[in-house]
Amino acid sequence: MGFSELLYPESIAVIGASRKPGKAGYAVVDNLLKGGFQGEIIPVNREVDEVLGLKCYRDLSSYEGEVDLSVIAVPAGNVIDAVESAIGAGTKALVVISAAFKESGPEGAELERQLAELCLENRVCLLGPKSLGVINTHHKMNASFTKHMPHSGGISVLSESGGVCTAIMDWAAARHLGLAKVVSIGNKADLNEIDLLDQFVKDDQTKVVVGYLEGISSGDEFVKVAESVAVLKPVVIYRAGITQAGVRAACLHTGSRPGANIAYAAAFKRAGVIQAESLEALFDYATALAMQPLPRGDRVAVVTNAGGLGVMASDALELAGMRVAALDERTCTALKEQLPAGASIGNPIDILGDADPDRYAMAVELAQNDTAVNATIVILAPHAMTKPAETIRAIAAHVHSEKPMLVVVLGSADVMPGREELARANLPDYPFPERAVAALKAMHQYATWRARPPRVVTRFPVNRRRVERLVLRQVRTGRQEFGEVRAKEILRAYDFTVPEGYLAKDAVAAIEAAERVGYPVAMKIVSPDIIHKSDVGGVKLHLSDPEQVQDTYDLLSLRIQRRAPEARLEGIYIEKMCPLGLEVVVGMRRDPQFGPMLMFGLGGIFVEELKDEACYLAPITADEAMQMLMGTRSYRLLEGARGQAGVDVSAIAKGMQRMSQLVTDFPQISELEINPFTVGEAGSEPVVVDARMIISGVNQ
Amino acid sequence: MGFSELLYPESIAVIGASRKPGKAGYAVVDNLLKGGFQGEIIPVNREVDEVLGLKCYRDLSSYEGEVDLSVIAVPAGNVIDAVESAIGAGTKALVVISAAFKESGPEGAELERQLAELCLENRVCLLGPKSLGVINTHHKMNASFTKHMPHSGGISVLSESGGVCTAIMDWAAARHLGLAKVVSIGNKADLNEIDLLDQFVKDDQTKVVVGYLEGISSGDEFVKVAESVAVLKPVVIYRAGITQAGVRAACLHTGSRPGANIAYAAAFKRAGVIQAESLEALFDYATALAMQPLPRGDRVAVVTNAGGLGVMASDALELAGMRVAALDERTCTALKEQLPAGASIGNPIDILGDADPDRYAMAVELAQNDTAVNATIVILAPHAMTKPAETIRAIAAHVHSEKPMLVVVLGSADVMPGREELARANLPDYPFPERAVAALKAMHQYATWRARPPRVVTRFPVNRRRVERLVLRQVRTGRQEFGEVRAKEILRAYDFTVPEGYLAKDAVAAIEAAERVGYPVAMKIVSPDIIHKSDVGGVKLHLSDPEQVQDTYDLLSLRIQRRAPEARLEGIYIEKMCPLGLEVVVGMRRDPQFGPMLMFGLGGIFVEELKDEACYLAPITADEAMQMLMGTRSYRLLEGARGQAGVDVSAIAKGMQRMSQLVTDFPQISELEINPFTVGEAGSEPVVVDARMIISGVNQ
Repeated sequence: MGFSELLYPESIAVIGASRKPGKAGYAVVDNLLKGGFQGEIIPVNREVDEVLGLKCYRDLSSYEGEVDLSVIAVPAGNVIDAVESAIGAGTKALVVISAAFKESGPEGAELERQLAELCLENRVCLLGPKSLGVINTHHKMNASFTKHMPHSGGISVLSESGGVCTAIMDWAAARHLGLAKVVSIGNKADLNEIDLLDQFVKDDQTKVVVGYLEGISSGDEFVKVAESVAVLKPVVIYRAGITQAGVRAACLHTGSRPGANIAYAAAFKRAGVIQAESLEALFDYATALAMQPLPRGDRVAVVTNAGGLGVMASDALELAGMRVAALDERTCTALKEQLPAGASIGNPIDILGDADPDRYAMAVELAQNDTAVNATIVILAPHAMTKPAETIRAIAAHVHSEKPMLVVVLGSADVMPGREELARANLPDYPFPERAVAALKAMHQYATWRARPPRVVTRFPVNRRRVERLVLRQVRTGRQEFGEVRAKEILRAYDFTVPEGYLAKDAVAAIEAAERVGYPVAMKIVSPDIIHKSDVGGVKLHLSDPEQVQDTYDLLSLRIQRRAPEARLEGIYIEKMCPLGLEVVVGMRRDPQFGPMLMFGLGGIFVEELKDEACYLAPITADEAMQMLMGTRSYRLLEGARGQAGVDVSAIAKGMQRMSQLVTDFPQISELEINPFTVGEAGSEPVVVDARMIISGVNQ
Repeated sequence: MGFSELLYPESIAVIGASRKPGKAGYAVVDNLLKGGFQGEIIPVNREVDEVLGLKCYRDLSSYEGEVDLSVIAVPAGNVIDAVESAIGAGTKALVVISAAFKESGPEGAELERQLAELCLENRVCLLGPKSLGVINTHHKMNASFTKHMPHSGGISVLSESGGVCTAIMDWAAARHLGLAKVVSIGNKADLNEIDLLDQFVKDDQTKVVVGYLEGISSGDEFVKVAESVAVLKPVVIYRAGITQAGVRAACLHTGSRPGANIAYAAAFKRAGVIQAESLEALFDYATALAMQPLPRGDRVAVVTNAGGLGVMASDALELAGMRVAALDERTCTALKEQLPAGASIGNPIDILGDADPDRYAMAVELAQNDTAVNATIVILAPHAMTKPAETIRAIAAHVHSEKPMLVVVLGSADVMPGREELARANLPDYPFPERAVAALKAMHQYATWRARPPRVVTRFPVNRRRVERLVLRQVRTGRQEFGEVRAKEILRAYDFTVPEGYLAKDAVAAIEAAERVGYPVAMKIVSPDIIHKSDVGGVKLHLSDPEQVQDTYDLLSLRIQRRAPEARLEGIYIEKMCPLGLEVVVGMRRDPQFGPMLMFGLGGIFVEELKDEACYLAPITADEAMQMLMGTRSYRLLEGARGQAGVDVSAIAKGMQRMSQLVTDFPQISELEINPFTVGEAGSEPVVVDARMIISGVNQ
């Protein structure tokens, strides 16, 4: 609805067009003219007859032609009127540049609501308010108040902040990088990042997507759409507002309410979105992605004319988890033959401070042709005898179509003559080795995601009907929290190993139950009113004969009457003692944005105090479950540290997958935690020792 | 010895002077001339009579005047001859530019050794080999083969890499920053970073020291000298070669052998050296330190014309552990009065995209004058209506002499006209908010170090004589490892709480000892040949009556005969069972570079698997001991997490200080570990449950 009119309009009205340079209404008309827009431009202003040599209309109704797109640049209070006149003229798409809406308080928010409703009713798509505008270089359209029309190219930009949008365009200009579409989504009253990503999937001119976001409009849709883009072209996004202070600032800014950071990271990972941790990183990654092919592995050759910079690059590669490639013997021999004495023929290849263009070309060619090398970083330090422009030309001649090459040029001031050479050769350059390495790592991770095996989510045979009945019954009680006993019943239906146990209403039944499951047993009070049983002394372990069971039954019953007189006691649960093992925690909480998020961590302090946990969006595959386990700092303990045998990690992974299936099957489950989930050596089944579950009362 | 001739020579010989541009021997003469050197320049070259218009000598012996400094730029094989001729001419200082020494293999290393010896014998100080040269802008001397003579200013530079040295000079030139001394220390055959830091202390022209190092020549001297500089002026150092890959590259490069990373971090922290984690950070920090005063706190105001960038700055401040200042009410009122509607008067102060120079000046002045603000970050995003140069001039008028102000200018290309304005106003600028925040954090940490209370190391009354005797006795045995019993004797003499215990040679004596210390007891085998007693089943706990002691004595004796037939058994140690408590580990290992390094961590997996430990160089103060405890991720567990009472942290800190005193008093102790050291609630004494100690055989 209205996308072709937004991105490929034949006629554009500028309501609030102005004759005064410095005004947005002037800049938009000026940019449309300077950008070479081929369609009709219709300035509208009640006060004047002419703007920048174009006939200006007092009112849009006096214009008789078609209007595809209207750009609104009037004070907030006049926006509704302006939009009504635009709609009256048949406009299909709107860009509202005006500010002072949601971000300025309740009054502005109400105005924004009215604006959105008006557009919805009339089936007009709306960009903004507080948008910088929209640019489509391939349509020669710059309907924005930016300073310049960008070069035409393959990068499409979407930004929630006008200032950052401008910054991205400045970066592209400085880098000689061409842009396709630039869309400033502003307050996102209608069109948001999801709508635009959806456009970018189909857009052949878009090769790379670069985005700045503060919040996301709908988590699960975002993941779906972003993934559909990422399988075809890289999507790099920098999201700000990740800390308490940042969130406060973001609320003041566009009124966005950013969500939990960990959920965003999980969502980006799932969707294959490359997450940049700063605007600088966004630029660094996007430059490499726009200019070079993806690497097929993590083994990197470094060619340098300064040893110290080779050391830095090696440090950076190791810290990033990439590898300094071990060069093939033939490469080493060839280097030895051609390099002067004192040069280092290992990797980094130090070709010395007096390296001339030919020496660079020789070393770079040998490195790029080495089969043990997946990518090359070429470092150029400006010594007195260095010829930057010639050297870059010489290097450029050896760009490999299947292996990325990134260049580090220190001291940009001196090599400015070489900058355009770099752009012409499609060679991304960085001022420091660390930044080239970070860009290469982002490319490598994305390439790995692209090459991942098809996501096959295993479905285990389970007793789904039984869970349906249990959930339904619980919903009827009106209580959200499942107690341990019922949570365990549900988990058992999904084939989790749960110790055998029975509810006893008196001491005799308790002893009978104990004899049935076999000693030793555990005894736990069961009450819908007591969630944390241990806190009231409601759990006793290791009871090994009928007398102990008798005494414990009496003790627990009396104790509950004393300590929680108002709690309804349903009975005492008698359960076989679980075998000992390593305690882990497996859980799920439903993120308001992204849906069911699975969690894994080691038990006790690891999760609670050290916050050492891994998260992933459900449903997960076997491979993703293993990645979650390996994603914790304490993973080595699972493998068997301190001379102890390791535990059955694949059994934990299976448990995670079963939980994934359960929470995907039942969207009513809003929280679920198995804590502890006890795992033993390879071949043993992990056991659900305790569990709790919360459902939301209504079907979602 | 020779420093004044190195830095302030009156006459300089260039041996290997050349007429060919591109040769180092040409560049040095050219640089001396272009730099405006006022003294005598004496080119020496066997082949020519004239270099760059100066008379060239075939041999230095034919020159009759004094020679203060000689620069050697001949092939490695001719260096010794050239140096001999220089010494013959009375040279007091030498700069060897030639390469292919230590870094090229054993032959080069031998040549370097000869070179160093020759200089030492003749009391001539030597810079290099593989030096880029030396520059003293205040003496108009550029005795190097760099491209330009830097501007004169307050930053002195020392670098272990010639390429990095050039990069530092390029950075300073691009930033309009002035340099004082630039010294490329190369392979450090004689003069090293310590000698030069020592010069920089006394040098009034040096206001900030910037260094690039790969290794350090002598750890404890470095700490002493660096601290003496840092109390007067900031020292910022970037050290590369911190990973395995980096170390390999560094060995290939200058032959440096970098030490353990953790020890360097501890040494830098002690000495007040600002550690930069990359070359980029080195530049970013040094720029701020050279231009702006130190902040007196961590509360930062942010003024921005783009909301998104304010969000980024807020994120960065919180992630860095700095604070977004809560503005004074009067400041808010004043802002509200003067800013247009839609502007945000919180912090970040969003003055909107159309902010003109006056609005910037007003907001910046209000922020800087707010007593709740310690520093201000001003952000300038280049909107179409922004006037960068005028804005920077307007901001510059409000620079505060006691509060730092840092500027973030996005999209450098467009604001280049403003760059010189920034330099003139002493305003450091950064392309992204994160980098300004990182620089501010480095300044804040350094300011905190500068303002630290005097380091008073508490000396506890101890029985030092007793330890002397015990160590002496151990040295005589020729064994390096102290067993548990003797290590505990030593710790007891330093007032550690050690459970009462006695060595028993037979079962009767064991029972007697148990009765004396009181039940329950622990029993442990004592053998100089068995270090890990538990591994051979040599420890039994919780023995509560004479019969158990009798049985255990027999069991342990028999078991040792069986499992370790060759071990000499000295007896069984009977010890009172320790009270339960939280187990921590307190240790010391003597770093080959920096000396005694204390270690603290929580027991078990925390230290062994999660590597969660804090290190600090001994001797430590009470304050530093507390900082060590707080420096671990698991500190919250000491404070009392999961509803448990906290432990007596100050008692652990006292234990660390006692250990500090012990290892400082006895340099023979090369390793010491108390593991576990059991701590209880406030008021209780931590107990040494097990300990081991290693001495180096000889007095160091």
